[in-house]
Amino acid sequence: MAPRYAPSLRSRLAPLLLLLQLVFIVIYAFYVEIENDVRADGITFSKLYPEFQDVNVMVILGFGFLCTFLVRYGFSGSGFNLLVSVMATQWAVILTGIESWYYRGKIKINLRSLVVAQMCAASALISIGTVLGKTNPVHLILIALLEVSGFVLNEWLLQTLLKVPLLDSIMLLHVFGAFFGLMLTWSLYRKGSELPFEKEKSDRNTVLFSMLGTVFLWMFWPSFNSVLVDDRTPGRKLWAVCSTYLAMAVSAVTAAAVSVLSSPKGKLNPVLMQSCILAGGVAVGVSMSVVQQPWEAMTIGFTAAVVSTIGFRYLKIHMLLAFQCHDTRAVLSTHGLPGLLGWLAHLLLQIKDCDDHTTAIRFAVFHISSLLITIALSLSMGIITGLLLNWNFWRPTQDKKCFDDQAFWEFPHLAVRK
Amino acid sequence: MAPRYAPSLRSRLAPLLLLLQLVFIVIYAFYVEIENDVRADGITFSKLYPEFQDVNVMVILGFGFLCTFLVRYGFSGSGFNLLVSVMATQWAVILTGIESWYYRGKIKINLRSLVVAQMCAASALISIGTVLGKTNPVHLILIALLEVSGFVLNEWLLQTLLKVPLLDSIMLLHVFGAFFGLMLTWSLYRKGSELPFEKEKSDRNTVLFSMLGTVFLWMFWPSFNSVLVDDRTPGRKLWAVCSTYLAMAVSAVTAAAVSVLSSPKGKLNPVLMQSCILAGGVAVGVSMSVVQQPWEAMTIGFTAAVVSTIGFRYLKIHMLLAFQCHDTRAVLSTHGLPGLLGWLAHLLLQIKDCDDHTTAIRFAVFHISSLLITIALSLSMGIITGLLLNWNFWRPTQDKKCFDDQAFWEFPHLAVRK
Amino acid sequence: MAPRYAPSLRSRLAPLLLLLQLVFIVIYAFYVEIENDVRADGITFSKLYPEFQDVNVMVILGFGFLCTFLVRYGFSGSGFNLLVSVMATQWAVILTGIESWYYRGKIKINLRSLVVAQMCAASALISIGTVLGKTNPVHLILIALLEVSGFVLNEWLLQTLLKVPLLDSIMLLHVFGAFFGLMLTWSLYRKGSELPFEKEKSDRNTVLFSMLGTVFLWMFWPSFNSVLVDDRTPGRKLWAVCSTYLAMAVSAVTAAAVSVLSSPKGKLNPVLMQSCILAGGVAVGVSMSVVQQPWEAMTIGFTAAVVSTIGFRYLKIHMLLAFQCHDTRAVLSTHGLPGLLGWLAHLLLQIKDCDDHTTAIRFAVFHISSLLITIALSLSMGIITGLLLNWNFWRPTQDKKCFDDQAFWEFPHLAVRK
Repeated sequence: MAPRYAPSLRSRLAPLLLLLQLVFIVIYAFYVEIENDVRADGITFSKLYPEFQDVNVMVILGFGFLCTFLVRYGFSGSGFNLLVSVMATQWAVILTGIESWYYRGKIKINLRSLVVAQMCAASALISIGTVLGKTNPVHLILIALLEVSGFVLNEWLLQTLLKVPLLDSIMLLHVFGAFFGLMLTWSLYRKGSELPFEKEKSDRNTVLFSMLGTVFLWMFWPSFNSVLVDDRTPGRKLWAVCSTYLAMAVSAVTAAAVSVLSSPKGKLNPVLMQSCILAGGVAVGVSMSVVQQPWEAMTIGFTAAVVSTIGFRYLKIHMLLAFQCHDTRAVLSTHGLPGLLGWLAHLLLQIKDCDDHTTAIRFAVFHISSLLITIALSLSMGIITGLLLNWNFWRPTQDKKCFDDQAFWEFPHLAVRK
Repeated sequence: MAPRYAPSLRSRLAPLLLLLQLVFIVIYAFYVEIENDVRADGITFSKLYPEFQDVNVMVILGFGFLCTFLVRYGFSGSGFNLLVSVMATQWAVILTGIESWYYRGKIKINLRSLVVAQMCAASALISIGTVLGKTNPVHLILIALLEVSGFVLNEWLLQTLLKVPLLDSIMLLHVFGAFFGLMLTWSLYRKGSELPFEKEKSDRNTVLFSMLGTVFLWMFWPSFNSVLVDDRTPGRKLWAVCSTYLAMAVSAVTAAAVSVLSSPKGKLNPVLMQSCILAGGVAVGVSMSVVQQPWEAMTIGFTAAVVSTIGFRYLKIHMLLAFQCHDTRAVLSTHGLPGLLGWLAHLLLQIKDCDDHTTAIRFAVFHISSLLITIALSLSMGIITGLLLNWNFWRPTQDKKCFDDQAFWEFPHLAVRK
Repeated sequence: MAPRYAPSLRSRLAPLLLLLQLVFIVIYAFYVEIENDVRADGITFSKLYPEFQDVNVMVILGFGFLCTFLVRYGFSGSGFNLLVSVMATQWAVILTGIESWYYRGKIKINLRSLVVAQMCAASALISIGTVLGKTNPVHLILIALLEVSGFVLNEWLLQTLLKVPLLDSIMLLHVFGAFFGLMLTWSLYRKGSELPFEKEKSDRNTVLFSMLGTVFLWMFWPSFNSVLVDDRTPGRKLWAVCSTYLAMAVSAVTAAAVSVLSSPKGKLNPVLMQSCILAGGVAVGVSMSVVQQPWEAMTIGFTAAVVSTIGFRYLKIHMLLAFQCHDTRAVLSTHGLPGLLGWLAHLLLQIKDCDDHTTAIRFAVFHISSLLITIALSLSMGIITGLLLNWNFWRPTQDKKCFDDQAFWEFPHLAVRK
């Protein structure tokens, strides 16, 4: 059974995991401490903990089960997601703590810094959606580490050069993750991918499993958008939660309607809906800090769902045929386009609120620069990562083993169905 | 494939969804604001948010996956549940805010009003359980809007005419939803329904998916019953949570025992258990404001499970043969009977606590009136809705397409199992 | 169909459940009250409620769906888990309240006492994992009641004789549950168990269902370890949460790596990973009160995952062949070994912190005594329970009906797959 793959896990994955894990433990031993002044940033444990857990559920269960829709790739979809997210989170804790280490000698972790690290991991999980099923887990770990490094660098650039607030810079994770992923899948393009892969299919049960991941993402997205909102201004968190909830509600309805209208048979598409009902949360997240009215959030949710659904129907196949980007989980239309839309909404709403032209132009320049930096960095990091992964040393998966758990998982106790 | 149905979604569902959604956005733009005084009703964000999310999980995931037990109707069960609940919630926010709009010019939304709106949506989801698999999504949207309107009207009548407290009136959602649904399924009766539908079946996996929905409902029911309990009296929330937890525990045990005793083969029935273990939460919710002792909650849970299990075994088939009510999800025995039982327990416990006869009789009259109003309104709204839905304009589902996702969903990427 | 089993449920399970439930209601009526002074132990409702719900999710959903991996035993795995946990929780509320009843005349329940009771139930659920699929539900109820009695007795002994703090004594639930379960499965050994049972198998879908249970346990383990940590010392809860999170992260990575290294084919094993990624949470929970640095938690998580994975690969089959212990859910390597490791880490860390030799030796003696008492009591209670269950009055399941839902569940509406 697949003798060529077994060694790749044993000689590549296991040593890589053990090595990285031991290095992380050593780094943590010397430089990481748990915050002992819990009032340090004015957020008490019990206020933040429920939202921390919601984000945790989204990262582990939401993204994990979202990737179970492939009929023969459920173990890998959910299992590798767990592996990647915990490696990425540990790495992101270190990277985002460098500044604190520089000034205070130690990286102090608390719930807030864990949430930030989980969000960096989420941006890696988004990127990985583009190559789902076409890589081995060694690739995934490397992608995660490089993507998180790039994303933290991007955040640092935006915050240092352009004084972008933390919340605004971190919410660009959708844009960064999507464009990084696109470059990655372009670099890893396999000949023959224009035709559907033999095993890139779903069945009733796997679609229900990914429905489960989807509804967890859908339900807890208000926590994702509000968790880093400063609660010292009373009401800001409530605004974030209500805006996101309404945007998600509208985008669920709109995605269903546009899915029917754009279908040749006039029917709903389950995989499309699972992607596109989330568009509202992405878009409103990126523009979170300036959305003030429910209808603004709802309009953003409406537009995001329209853009996302049309992108899923037409752009996905176009990207494949014209640009050789095979995007398994339709990350461009789920995260990329709604992210850009949210960026645009942010720009328009902020300019609308400006009193004079000078401030408006100044803001526009800064805002456009921040997007350009993000896109430039994500594309270039994506290409670099892709080039690295093309090295045969990592033992890429054969075409006929794509989208198949059997390359990586034992099935010793599985019942034989006759 | 099913050419008659494709147009019904494209020419009916999509325009209806888009139209309603745009109307909602316009209404929200003019009349809805997010609460900016978060201390307005003495509940701070962080106290209520975890319970808000629990209710959200119950409405979206709990009810959604409860409806996946049908073997060919999983996408519709969970997907339409999401659509219906977000439409109903948006509509309920408007309706329940009319009074606030009348006095203050604006509807102010906060977590509490979102929870109230989600509970109104829950009453619509209960009604829809009776016609699960036999209607198209256009019907479901119409049912949801009319049911929520009726339920909010009922609440307003009870609060205005009889001074019923908010908590007591809203907990009648189980009774209202169940009787509304019964009238609905009676109006939509199809000839030949006495015989089992060809596709009204489950298999191992779908029953496990609905087990998942069930356990989420079971686990978070304490939040459902306690979220609107006033926490200015210290300890009231704790009482609500402990009472509900104990009632749920007892009703799980009792439902299992009675299920075995009432089975011809002396075995447990998975679908029955998934309905009846929830009976305790329903009953104790309706009598929440007067339950004071653990044993009272446990006795209510015990009786509710007995009534619910016996109702599921004998009444469901009787309703079908004698009254032509085909109740797919056994809503009468899951929500209707335990709701009535909870109402009775409320009456008895309140009378027991009264000091003199006059107060007791006065309370009894009011309490009986509130039930009569609720039942009268739910039955009449159910019939009206049923008559409206019988209009062929909505393109009802053919008998042989009942309980089948294929009428509404594309299966483009599904693997063919040989 | 299986006529020999139907009567066993009707004549044994149903009367047992009804009798026990009525007895519990009577006991609760006379002796149990809901706490009316919510400030009694300095913990307010809203602080504890989210963690209470997380533990509830772990006990009902986590352990329940962890047991769905057997291909024909999903209803029993999740359904009996629910039954057992609610019976055990009700019983544990009574047992853990005896002291309060003795001094105050009443058992006062609040969120904290419900959590303690759920943890006692969790120790019973761990024990039951060893005999999963080989007993009938009557056995399971009896096991749960006896296990909880033994565990509460053990806790009381440790707290009274050795002044072990509540948190430390209750976290030994993993050790107690595992050793109790091992003795149990040894007592219930069936001839021929050396060969794999015909139906002890999984398939893709059931492994994904148990993945779901696993990730819920994985995600909410920080709540499990921190919920009983005293929050009057600011920061202690944060430490517990961060330590557990990091230990879980490291043990997920390590379990994957060791799983590959120890596999003959060099592949990952899904069922093994679902057990072993939890080892870090177990070990760090047992040593929770002395872990102070992230790297300590991470090292414990690393070692626990190594021990647990190696135990799963080699010890499980050795226990079966050499000691006739057939351990369905590999409880020894999931809970037993990591629990012992956590105990050892507790000892070493505490000694490291001691200033002088006398204190260190004194502590070591007490700590070793507490383990010896726990193991002695769990082994003896396990044997007693096993002897009781060997009585034919309980109608044990025939060998060929093991691991099969059909002995206990009706399948009236299930679709026939051709």
